[in-house]
Amino acid sequence: MPETSKTVTAAILVIGNEILSGRTKDANIQYLATELGKLGVRVMECRVIPDIEATVVATVNELRAKFDYVFTTGGIGPTHDDITADCIAKAFGVGISEHPDAVERMTRHYGNPALFTPARRRMARVPHGGILVDNPISVAPGFQMENVFTFAGIPSVAQGMFQSMKHRLVGGDPVLSRTVRTNLPEGIIAEPLGALQKRYEDIDIGSYPAFRNGKPSVSLVLRGTDDARLATAAGELIRTIKEMNGEAEEFAS
Amino acid sequence: MPETSKTVTAAILVIGNEILSGRTKDANIQYLATELGKLGVRVMECRVIPDIEATVVATVNELRAKFDYVFTTGGIGPTHDDITADCIAKAFGVGISEHPDAVERMTRHYGNPALFTPARRRMARVPHGGILVDNPISVAPGFQMENVFTFAGIPSVAQGMFQSMKHRLVGGDPVLSRTVRTNLPEGIIAEPLGALQKRYEDIDIGSYPAFRNGKPSVSLVLRGTDDARLATAAGELIRTIKEMNGEAEEFAS
Repeated sequence: MPETSKTVTAAILVIGNEILSGRTKDANIQYLATELGKLGVRVMECRVIPDIEATVVATVNELRAKFDYVFTTGGIGPTHDDITADCIAKAFGVGISEHPDAVERMTRHYGNPALFTPARRRMARVPHGGILVDNPISVAPGFQMENVFTFAGIPSVAQGMFQSMKHRLVGGDPVLSRTVRTNLPEGIIAEPLGALQKRYEDIDIGSYPAFRNGKPSVSLVLRGTDDARLATAAGELIRTIKEMNGEAEEFAS
Repeated sequence: MPETSKTVTAAILVIGNEILSGRTKDANIQYLATELGKLGVRVMECRVIPDIEATVVATVNELRAKFDYVFTTGGIGPTHDDITADCIAKAFGVGISEHPDAVERMTRHYGNPALFTPARRRMARVPHGGILVDNPISVAPGFQMENVFTFAGIPSVAQGMFQSMKHRLVGGDPVLSRTVRTNLPEGIIAEPLGALQKRYEDIDIGSYPAFRNGKPSVSLVLRGTDDARLATAAGELIRTIKEMNGEAEEFAS
């Protein structure tokens, strides 16, 4: 374990009218948040915004100043509503043009020059200073501008891009978690749980009610960077619940 | 149809560490966005933020000034991590205390006073000036403060709360949509599609590639408030695709 603990933060910016209209359900936030957590990068905010240039530019600039990393998804395809690359260039105050490596990859991929249409060539445009992010699924790359990574919106492509660039990230202490599941309702467990949270200030204790097989069930999730502390706190929680005649089981989480 | 068209906007604010950690996949954004669209309320932004008081207070104040309506989900249960009601009170600069109607409903619901624990009584606390939002699922109410509606995070409860209060919303012209699906890839259809978008500035045309039954497919979604205009534009789009020897079919959307 490192001697000093460092928190590395990130924001996820989903760009797309189709999420805001309810047409499409976002599928990138959960994937990226989970993968980033494994690398010790904590997602502190997610935003979904429309394909409006001024909004994208202002939001990128706000988030890149506020967090260690920013990941954008959506808006880098070949159609008129794909404005993300231009917006990122504006946010950084740089120009944008075809990236020779991107052109080469796409020329090879399409083979027949007639298929490498002007619209598809738009996908080879990268803000000046940008570093390509490989696209193992459909070739047209994403890119990195300083601490901002721009991915496609299609989940398989966004996931492929993330996997191909994740070695570039420098994470902090990974966030570990333990989950205790109980049949006691939140309203009964709340008081001892709050007391436990007060005694373990370095642990983030969350309480998530749900229905499992038709019965109410509460997942109590303990999150922190020191597994020994998590184990102690989880043990204490299980004992407390059993003293209240509740069922308590620890689950991998 | 009203003589003047008015756009009514909304933001959805999801409050919860469990979404940011990737543990839980948000299920409220799509539901609320879809339902609001039906009422002529356009969701212009969604945010997911952690259970941190300063963040919640600042975000609520930013969003309620910027949009006609704000809907928050999450953080109104009985445990220590349920801080939303207190944050809303702070955002509005008012106090918070037990709402007599809420206490009455919950007293009736729990029956035995021993079950109406201090933790559960916390769920009867409402910022001063707040109007209750009925909870048809689990009784403990949400509330409305001016243009801000606060719902629970559990999807069935959030949905029930929305349905019970939606008559309070005054929407603008409902957003209608038509979807044309084609087998032509985006890179081929992009140019005529961009030209169509230029001719129909009052329509928002989006292009969404996907795989259907293992084959690439593109959904072209036309959104606007005038169905006759949408029909004309969709017809033009279908003709254009067929002239390019593509398949084009209109789908209900």
